[in-house]
Amino acid sequence: MQKKHTGNQTICFGKPVYIVGRASAAGPEECKGPLKKHFHICVPDALWGEESFEKAEQKIFEQTVKRAIQSAGKKPQDMDFLVGGDLLNQIISAGYSARELGIPFLGIYGACSTMAQSMIMGAMLVDGNFADYAVCATSSHYATAERQFRFPVELGTPKTPTSQNTVTGGGACVLAASGEAADCLTITGATVGCVVDLGIKDANNMGAAMAPAALETILTHFEDTGKSPADYDMIVTGDLGTFGSELLVDMANKMGVDLSSVHQDCGSMIFEGVPDSCCGGSGCGCGAAVLNGYLLNRMQEGALQRLLFVATGAMLSPTSIQQGESVPSVAHAVVIERSNVQC
Amino acid sequence: MQKKHTGNQTICFGKPVYIVGRASAAGPEECKGPLKKHFHICVPDALWGEESFEKAEQKIFEQTVKRAIQSAGKKPQDMDFLVGGDLLNQIISAGYSARELGIPFLGIYGACSTMAQSMIMGAMLVDGNFADYAVCATSSHYATAERQFRFPVELGTPKTPTSQNTVTGGGACVLAASGEAADCLTITGATVGCVVDLGIKDANNMGAAMAPAALETILTHFEDTGKSPADYDMIVTGDLGTFGSELLVDMANKMGVDLSSVHQDCGSMIFEGVPDSCCGGSGCGCGAAVLNGYLLNRMQEGALQRLLFVATGAMLSPTSIQQGESVPSVAHAVVIERSNVQC
Repeated sequence: MQKKHTGNQTICFGKPVYIVGRASAAGPEECKGPLKKHFHICVPDALWGEESFEKAEQKIFEQTVKRAIQSAGKKPQDMDFLVGGDLLNQIISAGYSARELGIPFLGIYGACSTMAQSMIMGAMLVDGNFADYAVCATSSHYATAERQFRFPVELGTPKTPTSQNTVTGGGACVLAASGEAADCLTITGATVGCVVDLGIKDANNMGAAMAPAALETILTHFEDTGKSPADYDMIVTGDLGTFGSELLVDMANKMGVDLSSVHQDCGSMIFEGVPDSCCGGSGCGCGAAVLNGYLLNRMQEGALQRLLFVATGAMLSPTSIQQGESVPSVAHAVVIERSNVQC
Repeated sequence: MQKKHTGNQTICFGKPVYIVGRASAAGPEECKGPLKKHFHICVPDALWGEESFEKAEQKIFEQTVKRAIQSAGKKPQDMDFLVGGDLLNQIISAGYSARELGIPFLGIYGACSTMAQSMIMGAMLVDGNFADYAVCATSSHYATAERQFRFPVELGTPKTPTSQNTVTGGGACVLAASGEAADCLTITGATVGCVVDLGIKDANNMGAAMAPAALETILTHFEDTGKSPADYDMIVTGDLGTFGSELLVDMANKMGVDLSSVHQDCGSMIFEGVPDSCCGGSGCGCGAAVLNGYLLNRMQEGALQRLLFVATGAMLSPTSIQQGESVPSVAHAVVIERSNVQC
């Protein structure tokens, strides 16, 4: 059997894993941005008919998963595993959704790296022949994240210049071992990140906390695979925001790697031109919605052939910050390629 | 390639995955119980030289992982992946340990089912040829869990009759595709659970919340594999405690399955005869310490040949309980068999 594990952290899948269904959801603020037409679900307001922000977030998770499964022409009972998580304590958005969906559940926590982590694990389940179909998903919500990690939004606490807005939204995709003619999107590799921590203690500067993790995973990916920025049409980070993105490109430059022509950031893209969006979007739902909406649309159209999706997660804990700890971060990278099958 | 996915939720590994190293840790109360001599690390007190209970829990996680890797004759840098999580918000025990250990990190959240979930994912990584070595781990701590989920222990809040004591402890094991003569412990299968919720809203009655999840996973395992209780020397749940264990056996009886002769529970075993231990132990560290200490010792001695380890997790969230939700639970089962190699 072919050894799929190359270098220290990188996996090359034996054969491509197909993305056979996908969906994205975004909230009202996110739908003011330039990517609106690419989101499958536009959530009308912060509560979406529910009694709490947390229940609204669960609805986003559940509806996004259902929509992704539907777009694959399948039903929840066809899914072998749901691999997913979210930002909330005890990953309640994912857990309660799993209860409603009735799909065998593998809960994960990777903070805002969750979409990439779920796709890596889902692709391993499919490629390893453990699953015919795995659905990978995550979500986040501005109001639930702010009140858990910082201040309830009702307080109207002013933002600092480096802060980002947690995206209300989510994304899901269905992975399978073989695709139909229409399924031209494939996962061909992945790099699993180590936890990196350069000592940032500011819960309002997630970009700076996560940029070093993104850099390490990207450099490791190049080292393990022998690839360079030129091998990708886009290297897209999940939610570094504008400040974190600049840091990443600067740090990469100092390491002799020029990312400037290929790097983009989902957090910067989703809120481009939207007033009061600070340094851009963050949260699990940010990269998830932009990837499963805009970016995979662009790939399906043929505008992008090879994408490195690097979702970064700050393992921010109010408890450990109170105890004087800094914010450890992790980044996982997924190689997504457009197959030669005509879309 | 052989299809490893049988039934809806059950995996039969193509070839056995070896447990080539392991370690368990237990706190001072746990070491008053009958299993003391089986724990590799006896934690002397609740702080273990640290400034907070959370930091002490992180030390338990990290030291247990290091000890397991050492017992495999390996070093942290030999590990391809660390698959683990814990009960604390943002899985900080696992996350900060991953930072110190420098092993590529796949964080999971399965509440008290974490040990089984990490072993299932680790075994898939190894069997799928994605890793040479995967280390799987979890931990819990009485004081960190009580203050996060119920009341700070300093308040001295009285216990209810169905309550359990979160175990201070942890467990870790190193999985590999091939074993030495001494590595007679193998993982041969697994059943991934669905999220089950029969409406329990009492955060002090985890046994009742989790018993239906254990039942469903055990029955699914039998259905998917054609096995019965007689195929196992022991079917051991993670932490149902004495009350939840009785419920499980009763419910199974009503479904026509007699578990009474083979069922045991780590939570009941760890505190047997220890005063003030209520309905027994709970927490990720409970099943993890008892499995990686006592149970695998018994298997290595030859006293047990075939074990079904069913770790149950209550996805208890203070936030969702406050919002009137009930406690969803999940159970994952791992088939552990003693290989025919002479130990």
